[in-house]
Amino acid sequence: MGDDAAIFRPRPGYETLLTCDWFLEGTHFLLDRHPPHSVGWKCLARATSDLAAMGAKPCCFLLSIALSPAHADSWLDEFLRGLRSAAYRLHCPAAGGDTTRSRRLRISVTAIGECRRGRAVERTGARPGDAIFVSGHLGEAELGLRLIRAGKRPVDARDRRLRKHLYPEPRIELGAWLASNRLATAMMDLSDGLSSDLPRLCEASGVGARIAARQIPGPRLSGENAQKFDGLSLALDGGDDYELLFTVSPRKISQIPPRIGRVSLTPIGQVVGEKGVFVNTGGQQEIVLAKKGWDPFRR
Amino acid sequence: MGDDAAIFRPRPGYETLLTCDWFLEGTHFLLDRHPPHSVGWKCLARATSDLAAMGAKPCCFLLSIALSPAHADSWLDEFLRGLRSAAYRLHCPAAGGDTTRSRRLRISVTAIGECRRGRAVERTGARPGDAIFVSGHLGEAELGLRLIRAGKRPVDARDRRLRKHLYPEPRIELGAWLASNRLATAMMDLSDGLSSDLPRLCEASGVGARIAARQIPGPRLSGENAQKFDGLSLALDGGDDYELLFTVSPRKISQIPPRIGRVSLTPIGQVVGEKGVFVNTGGQQEIVLAKKGWDPFRR
Repeated sequence: MGDDAAIFRPRPGYETLLTCDWFLEGTHFLLDRHPPHSVGWKCLARATSDLAAMGAKPCCFLLSIALSPAHADSWLDEFLRGLRSAAYRLHCPAAGGDTTRSRRLRISVTAIGECRRGRAVERTGARPGDAIFVSGHLGEAELGLRLIRAGKRPVDARDRRLRKHLYPEPRIELGAWLASNRLATAMMDLSDGLSSDLPRLCEASGVGARIAARQIPGPRLSGENAQKFDGLSLALDGGDDYELLFTVSPRKISQIPPRIGRVSLTPIGQVVGEKGVFVNTGGQQEIVLAKKGWDPFRR
Repeated sequence: MGDDAAIFRPRPGYETLLTCDWFLEGTHFLLDRHPPHSVGWKCLARATSDLAAMGAKPCCFLLSIALSPAHADSWLDEFLRGLRSAAYRLHCPAAGGDTTRSRRLRISVTAIGECRRGRAVERTGARPGDAIFVSGHLGEAELGLRLIRAGKRPVDARDRRLRKHLYPEPRIELGAWLASNRLATAMMDLSDGLSSDLPRLCEASGVGARIAARQIPGPRLSGENAQKFDGLSLALDGGDDYELLFTVSPRKISQIPPRIGRVSLTPIGQVVGEKGVFVNTGGQQEIVLAKKGWDPFRR
């Protein structure tokens, strides 16, 4: 820090992975609703999730932040505190950055990771017959967002229903384990929702997919939320989960345990040769999956 | 491109350098005055200049761009054309990026470079007695900006007086040559103006500096501009030059030629032990240099 550029010494036998991600007021967070501590955590979690999705472990990050003088005080302090706790937890220290002035808050994080040469998992390797897996429970981040949007009181960062939305945990250990053991044929993280991301993975691999609605691990809804929200649509269309979506060749399926630590690994369907993503919603019915997830240019 | 992260294979014996830079509408460029082709060129030139300042050569870059649908047509096409010509000229291909929506244009470029292990030049190595050098002519970019601001007609990108402002050329070859021959004890690029950047270099090295006003290579002014503009203040306070500022130990000064290719290398003063930066403006007079260069939080 303090120099024009940060020096990074790559380990022999490893390759470097690079990714950058926007985190914008009004688009990715609401200045008046999201605690700055969570914004700090999440902007790094989001960027390192892209590394996890390739099977890489984070090494360091660069922070570009544009803010107004009005934010250069307690907001910034809390933001940096959240960022530092993510950096500590994710073993991903700051290596540099650029600060400038802007009326609205703009954050761009570049994360640098590494994995053993040749072991990075791309999106292109899914083959017909592969099983499709997701980690964790989908839709809980979206549920948290809806509760925050609907709420009138200041957000309570300790509310467990908001945890997945405010403090997502990128699946770094899981991604690295799948990559180093060559278990995933294709992988990506679920940042925009399954209904947007699965078609992307399929397109990159030149394949299609059939998934079963009742196998998708939806949000754990309790009390009135079980009535108020449709678990399946949250799981299909909710963004920001940062779970991993990956495909596994038939002969390796038995090597995927039902959970690693506290994170469940659930088979939700199969890769098929026919293009398109089909959801079996029970019985003989099958619907073509509509992209309803996150797309900044559609809203 | 298309995957979550880009894979970069570092060369053995080299270290990787990382830098990121904002390029914002209203702050770094004027949407209604600057040709999009120049914006594309300049955002990459600016980022790679930080690599040149360490003695590194660019390898690839990541582009984060936030724009409104209104720009996602001919503006974007021209911008990308300018960016591509810079990428080609600077040997720095795109490795990835992130696009999102924003009312105002926001660009952040992360540039990745490499240099031989242990050869990167930092800002911290200047020692009393070292000579201070700058490359090229200072203040010409600022002159171009003032002409653009004052002009009423659309900017003519071929106007030679605007060239340094619209299409700056980072001193990559020069930086790499100084670094690989261990000629510079400290180095940085002049992005914010000599009056801001020289004190930064001195502070990082824990030293001061004495420079002579008449040795500073100012802008080449012609015609009415020679009357209208003060060459010294342009050279001291003008930003965006992307020339190199570097220090050389006394026993190596003779190895610095007066020019390399078309780029002049000019000694402008000396590093001193006493803190502060002093400008000799002729005779016995010496003034303490005031920071008047670029600072986004002061304007």
